[in-house]
Amino acid sequence: MTLAEILARELGAEHVLGPEKLSLRHPGWCAQSLDAGLLVRPADAAELSAILKATPGVPVVPQGGVTGLVEGTASSPGEIIVSFERMNRIEQIDPAQGVALVGAGVTLAQLDAALEPHGLMAGVDIGARDSCTIGGMVSTNAGGIRVLRYGMMRASVLGLEVVRADGTVLDLTSPLMKNNAGYDLKQVFIGSEGTLGLVTKVALRLFPRPRAIATALVGIDARALSAFMPRLRLALGEGLAALEGMWPDCYRRCAEFQGVTPLPLQAGPDGPGLFLIAEAFGPDDTAAQTALEQALVPMLEDGTIRDAVLAQSGAERARIWRIREGAGVIGGDGAPGYHYDVSLKLADLDPYVQRLQAKVADAFDGIAVLVFGHVGDGNLHLSLMPDGTLPPRDAVDAVVYGVLAGFESSAISAEHGVGLEKRAALQTYRPAGILAAMGTLKAAFDPEGRLNPGKVLPGNGPR
Amino acid sequence: MTLAEILARELGAEHVLGPEKLSLRHPGWCAQSLDAGLLVRPADAAELSAILKATPGVPVVPQGGVTGLVEGTASSPGEIIVSFERMNRIEQIDPAQGVALVGAGVTLAQLDAALEPHGLMAGVDIGARDSCTIGGMVSTNAGGIRVLRYGMMRASVLGLEVVRADGTVLDLTSPLMKNNAGYDLKQVFIGSEGTLGLVTKVALRLFPRPRAIATALVGIDARALSAFMPRLRLALGEGLAALEGMWPDCYRRCAEFQGVTPLPLQAGPDGPGLFLIAEAFGPDDTAAQTALEQALVPMLEDGTIRDAVLAQSGAERARIWRIREGAGVIGGDGAPGYHYDVSLKLADLDPYVQRLQAKVADAFDGIAVLVFGHVGDGNLHLSLMPDGTLPPRDAVDAVVYGVLAGFESSAISAEHGVGLEKRAALQTYRPAGILAAMGTLKAAFDPEGRLNPGKVLPGNGPR
Repeated sequence: MTLAEILARELGAEHVLGPEKLSLRHPGWCAQSLDAGLLVRPADAAELSAILKATPGVPVVPQGGVTGLVEGTASSPGEIIVSFERMNRIEQIDPAQGVALVGAGVTLAQLDAALEPHGLMAGVDIGARDSCTIGGMVSTNAGGIRVLRYGMMRASVLGLEVVRADGTVLDLTSPLMKNNAGYDLKQVFIGSEGTLGLVTKVALRLFPRPRAIATALVGIDARALSAFMPRLRLALGEGLAALEGMWPDCYRRCAEFQGVTPLPLQAGPDGPGLFLIAEAFGPDDTAAQTALEQALVPMLEDGTIRDAVLAQSGAERARIWRIREGAGVIGGDGAPGYHYDVSLKLADLDPYVQRLQAKVADAFDGIAVLVFGHVGDGNLHLSLMPDGTLPPRDAVDAVVYGVLAGFESSAISAEHGVGLEKRAALQTYRPAGILAAMGTLKAAFDPEGRLNPGKVLPGNGPR
Repeated sequence: MTLAEILARELGAEHVLGPEKLSLRHPGWCAQSLDAGLLVRPADAAELSAILKATPGVPVVPQGGVTGLVEGTASSPGEIIVSFERMNRIEQIDPAQGVALVGAGVTLAQLDAALEPHGLMAGVDIGARDSCTIGGMVSTNAGGIRVLRYGMMRASVLGLEVVRADGTVLDLTSPLMKNNAGYDLKQVFIGSEGTLGLVTKVALRLFPRPRAIATALVGIDARALSAFMPRLRLALGEGLAALEGMWPDCYRRCAEFQGVTPLPLQAGPDGPGLFLIAEAFGPDDTAAQTALEQALVPMLEDGTIRDAVLAQSGAERARIWRIREGAGVIGGDGAPGYHYDVSLKLADLDPYVQRLQAKVADAFDGIAVLVFGHVGDGNLHLSLMPDGTLPPRDAVDAVVYGVLAGFESSAISAEHGVGLEKRAALQTYRPAGILAAMGTLKAAFDPEGRLNPGKVLPGNGPR
């Protein structure tokens, strides 16, 4: 029997898609997503388990919304793509316990729509919300702009159902706040990008939707960031909902790209070195506005803040965010460029940007280094955009990561993960002992290397 | 060479303690802690690594403050006790980043004293704060009364230094908020009770000390708990700092034991079925008091709350807490009794207590079931106290865990861990697939079974 015939026997032919049907699908952000030419759509963990047991040793590539940015969904002939699109049921919403139990294939937008009537929401929100799935968000430990307030996806996961490489189903869905009855196995699977087990169901901790949000655009000297951030946190406490940053080139270019003119804050040669979007949650509009204002005014008075504007309406808030959203568009509009996602200590963010911009100007001709990020979390997104032709990726990687490695604490991936794209960089910049321990984990949970082969760590098969 | 001679060669004889010196030490809460008769005190990860490499295959039992409650520090002849008491240096406090880097042997009280001048604190606080070590708290994923607000210990750990069974040192101390550069290895070691690796250093996320705390004692019908809790959370938001509960027998007996009379709230036969201590943080006393009052008054008016008293002074607050602290004393004053630490969904807490009390009355003569707990987290502590002689532990375990297993979501350990004490119960009440996956992890990270043998899972050696 062919692989397709075995799968059809297990699931029914209508849930096994070959190259013809796949050619009608969009591969998402990773051009090689559908190269396997064979996709299955199990309905639940039991069906996925049956597939894995019926095809021992055959590599499987799990795919959620295919919105990842590091080639984590690339597949090759001989592999089976596992889609979670039929595991799209919200099984339970328990407002008293503050927990939802959802299939891995439920999209974030779908969950959000179901939670809205309860006044609840998921902790993590990301731009890909219409496509990205909860299972994918767990597998990649998704981040986004609310991490400052609610933590990464890991912090929201109370329980998981996972299918192991040999088809064993682990029911770890128990939605308890506290469970020290042995190893917390779910931690192994969160953020492992489908290489240690396949997430089929998630028990997710929920949060009350904020009643009111106040938003300010703030210009500071970039060196003032490590003074600004703790003061803002102290003043707003848990009300601090987001602290995003744009370096001047990014701010100007995004505003221009989005047609936001005049600029809410000027950005001339003598202007601020860093533009921040600060947001506060509050019980009502007035309280949120007042809290944010009271946090900012003393820093305006003592010169920590150069300039600031507090959005007085939903329209003004949207206008500020449009600039920031331009950064996402510049990264994804098809214009040539390389994009990075790195992590540093707060005090190192601007020194890194300065050193990197100098080094890039030195090494290459006419490449703009556009920088924005979740600065409150120490997370920078870099877009290196050329005037003319781009130098080879390897050469640019060496500069971006080489400068990064000069800082004592840094990570080559803050929230995007490793996938295929950063695998070589991981081998170069993570110490051998840590890579060996990752290998220990991989060998223990996927001894045949059949789960998302080649992602995160070098694996068997064509990659 | 004897083991002691090998260790003395590596560390110097003054840091190797034999039976004579150990006989002067207190074994802590576990009577068998010092039975190995051989204890070493490495100064850092390098020395610990040298010891492990010089004694291949020899079992080691890590010990922090020896305040654990589940026999996690028991040792036997032929084993080496590793004490972290010399790794007691606070290496760095970074108020801007909100991070402390500390040796595993630093006590919680020592860290707290160092953080106090900075207006910062650790997220987790527990009664054993003067003895318990940060390394031990990480290894056991400690809980306590602030979990509702700051999460378990796991949520506070940004980085770890860990020594593996073969002596390899893993430097995972990088204090970044975000790091998706490969598997989050530190998660494997947190809560593994020293059976997968030995924690030598911790990068800990810090929190601002609360400026003001308001405290109320509230009596409700126990069935109202699942309505009370989400309303309290909604009203107080992140200001909700603690929600502790005492069932009536426990409340009365603790108050009597502590000499708190008259009772702040009456507890007659027609009295409330559950006494709660609710606490709110606030920017100042007035704001905290007002917030808590405004949260409680509507529920008093509609009858969700039977009766309540809001502490108007520090003395009144202390008086309320003294009752609750009596529960800890009853559990540890040497009176015969068995103590349990279990976890359930909020709505199941009181039904479990009722069913258990009925079942115990049925099965045994004259055993009081005293119940208190961190009810906001779904965590109950049970003390079964006899009038006369206690039945065998196995028989009582069977009733306590048997009734628990009748609830769909429950855990035999909420925050105490497994150690030796709950190992048999873990084997009985966790599904085989989950136990097998725990075994996979153990075999991968400690293939010889030398790390804290016999704890959590059945292991090699005498146990």
